[in-house]
Amino acid sequence: MTDDRADRIRRGDDGTFVVDRSLVSNCFGCGQANEQGLRLRFREVDDGWVETRVRVPRHLCGMDTVVHGGIQATILDEVCGVAAQLGLPPGSTDDPCVTAELSLRYQRPVPIADDVVAQARVTGVEGRRISVEGRIVSPDGEVLTAVTSRWAQLVRPPA
Amino acid sequence: MTDDRADRIRRGDDGTFVVDRSLVSNCFGCGQANEQGLRLRFREVDDGWVETRVRVPRHLCGMDTVVHGGIQATILDEVCGVAAQLGLPPGSTDDPCVTAELSLRYQRPVPIADDVVAQARVTGVEGRRISVEGRIVSPDGEVLTAVTSRWAQLVRPPA
Repeated sequence: MTDDRADRIRRGDDGTFVVDRSLVSNCFGCGQANEQGLRLRFREVDDGWVETRVRVPRHLCGMDTVVHGGIQATILDEVCGVAAQLGLPPGSTDDPCVTAELSLRYQRPVPIADDVVAQARVTGVEGRRISVEGRIVSPDGEVLTAVTSRWAQLVRPPA
Repeated sequence: MTDDRADRIRRGDDGTFVVDRSLVSNCFGCGQANEQGLRLRFREVDDGWVETRVRVPRHLCGMDTVVHGGIQATILDEVCGVAAQLGLPPGSTDDPCVTAELSLRYQRPVPIADDVVAQARVTGVEGRRISVEGRIVSPDGEVLTAVTSRWAQLVRPPA
């Protein structure tokens, strides 16, 4: 991790981290202040992937035994967003990256009884535009849902 | 509406409807039995579009003032799914259609202070495979988020 990236995250005792602004955010996905949210935390894993792991509450199901496809999209959006934010070129501002495109392929059902494990990594950076791929994987590593995404870093308005 | 379709929906006094199985479903999007869900209802609008309208609870925000992109995906998944189900060829079973692909383009923020209006219509049917386009629109008709999707009708297992 570069110093740039270390400046932007807060790491917990268990090795997981959140992006700074998540500490005070109400975001349904990553906001640590949202008691009804998923309060996702992240960790870095091998080969440049960022990972999040969450037990999804039962009321966020589609059919009774599976995680709703839109909630899968929420989790993948979040982990891809963290990968995008951490993948900004050295010297970038910490202005947030927002989703431009998210393309999901639902390959296998995602059981709601298990932890959902979602991973993402940057596949391309052009200035403020970042491409990220992601996936939800089963305990034995099978890809259940795959995603490609494009991100744009917001430009801070003049003070 | 054909008789086939009328058999599969339950219409309320206000002209909105739900697909039969939603009455007893816990689905986060359309399940009328899920008190923590969006409990989406639908209506048919001009030119073959199906529409849903919902005020999204504040705790489902991304940044504070906007609907989380994953919740937008949830709502679009639902309205596209209803369009797919109702777009099955005459004589089809009522086995559910499941999402195979969902590709979202986030063009403008979706304010959480307003009703979210999402619309979908079938663009192609090949046997049990259905293509559906959708959009979230502003009060003046601007497309805020656009989606294309592919669906597959499940095959009922032998009795």
